[in-house]
Amino acid sequence: MKVGFIGLGIMGKPMAKNLLRAGHSLTVFDILAPAVKELVQAGAQAGENPQDVARRSDVVITMLPNSPHVRDAALGDRGILKGIAPGALYIDMSSVAPAAVQEIAARFAEKSVEMLDAPVSGGEPKAKEGTLAIMVGGKPEVFEKAKGLLLAMGSSAVLCGGIGSGNVTKLANQIVVALNIAAMSEAYALSTKAGVDPDKVFNAIRGGLAGSTVLEAKTPMVLAGNFTPGFRIELHIKDLKNALDTAHEVGVPLPLTAQVMEIMQALKVDGKARNDHSGIVQFYERQSGVEVRRR
Amino acid sequence: MKVGFIGLGIMGKPMAKNLLRAGHSLTVFDILAPAVKELVQAGAQAGENPQDVARRSDVVITMLPNSPHVRDAALGDRGILKGIAPGALYIDMSSVAPAAVQEIAARFAEKSVEMLDAPVSGGEPKAKEGTLAIMVGGKPEVFEKAKGLLLAMGSSAVLCGGIGSGNVTKLANQIVVALNIAAMSEAYALSTKAGVDPDKVFNAIRGGLAGSTVLEAKTPMVLAGNFTPGFRIELHIKDLKNALDTAHEVGVPLPLTAQVMEIMQALKVDGKARNDHSGIVQFYERQSGVEVRRR
Repeated sequence: MKVGFIGLGIMGKPMAKNLLRAGHSLTVFDILAPAVKELVQAGAQAGENPQDVARRSDVVITMLPNSPHVRDAALGDRGILKGIAPGALYIDMSSVAPAAVQEIAARFAEKSVEMLDAPVSGGEPKAKEGTLAIMVGGKPEVFEKAKGLLLAMGSSAVLCGGIGSGNVTKLANQIVVALNIAAMSEAYALSTKAGVDPDKVFNAIRGGLAGSTVLEAKTPMVLAGNFTPGFRIELHIKDLKNALDTAHEVGVPLPLTAQVMEIMQALKVDGKARNDHSGIVQFYERQSGVEVRRR
Repeated sequence: MKVGFIGLGIMGKPMAKNLLRAGHSLTVFDILAPAVKELVQAGAQAGENPQDVARRSDVVITMLPNSPHVRDAALGDRGILKGIAPGALYIDMSSVAPAAVQEIAARFAEKSVEMLDAPVSGGEPKAKEGTLAIMVGGKPEVFEKAKGLLLAMGSSAVLCGGIGSGNVTKLANQIVVALNIAAMSEAYALSTKAGVDPDKVFNAIRGGLAGSTVLEAKTPMVLAGNFTPGFRIELHIKDLKNALDTAHEVGVPLPLTAQVMEIMQALKVDGKARNDHSGIVQFYERQSGVEVRRR
């Protein structure tokens, strides 16, 4: 299949390489030349801009930081919409606001181009392995058509509902992850300052109702004081902003998400925005004057 | 062993029965006669008051609602301290404030009586099965002496640190559970009102970093609108009050725990305090005018 790929960042680059490995003919674009060069060396062709990439592709994929970047690549002066042919398919795999996706899809529909939103979870390691979890929104028949392509980049692709549903699901995921990390942080800050080894707490509670993937994945990082990302706080801030914006648009107050957002903002002010999101515990360490560490 | 057991409520009654089954000679007390009668029919002897129970036992166990009840049973006019012999052992298995336990232990130490705090998790079903998870605070040599007795009621008994550590660990557990339920609730309220089936969201996110025992155990209840306890909101309120009191004493601000406490208070005002704690989702349902249900 002739595939276009726009956005060769930490996530996009390995995803594009997996499409090449799966035998697709790939045209790529990024505003940074070195990333394009790397993909060309791996067998891709370089497009001049999103419009040019779209002109040369049956399916166009974007993997960009946030809604404004996607809107610009899709609808801008040299955007995908200007180059894409009626009957082609546009898949945005960025994590963005669901409303932005729905607005873009409506514009593409006017030109008889179907769209899916298909954000991912799993981070850089799973992008490299091609084992991302892909959450998809769109029409079932369009999803079926795209499924094989998506599974070249992920180990699962789940249709969650109509266009925008992939990103709603991703936002739900990011809310749970942020709050589960904050929950762990409050529990460990309390127990540490109350004189109980957090490693003992971990082992005592992990097997019960308090058990979680966050507890298993992030406790070792917290107890070692290792906040190497992983997933950066600044990116989680972006996702929670989209979650809160979406929640307020549809009419759902999210008091805890709002609070963990402010905690992340405090960490950003404190110069820690590029730490792994398990660094949420550093807010509590600073507030309470104690370090949560294995003794 | 001659064991005394004070507090034959939902948890204490099956725990005491498991001690009888394990072959211990049991003297029991409760302010409610029917519970005592049931244990006597099962083979226990009835004590007149905590002092009398203590006089007739080598080990005394309390399983009571909260710190004031334990303080009264332990240190009151007809309390355990008045009847217990030097060299005997007192184990409080209630979920209470760590500071209360430490204060009581100091009083018992004056009479050369060792104390452990050993709160449990698992609820009524695991109390009946004898498979509670028991979190213990106290001296290692005292723990070793009591371990066999504890394992007649639980499938695990973990020493977390000095006296009070069992309850610190229990409070850490309750913080994580409450916040993980609230996290799930915010995620499902948002996705439902944004038009995405929460069951689809559950299946899309459960395998990733958002996965948790809370998500697995409580999603089916939430999607069915079934809030039969389980663990009642009013009991979780008690635990979070102890968590916040302890946190403020040792000097740790817990903004998210404070917020989920207020959410539970709102549910209490709304007449829902006796629902299962998965009923936290009902706060969001009311606020946003949407029901989180499987479609």
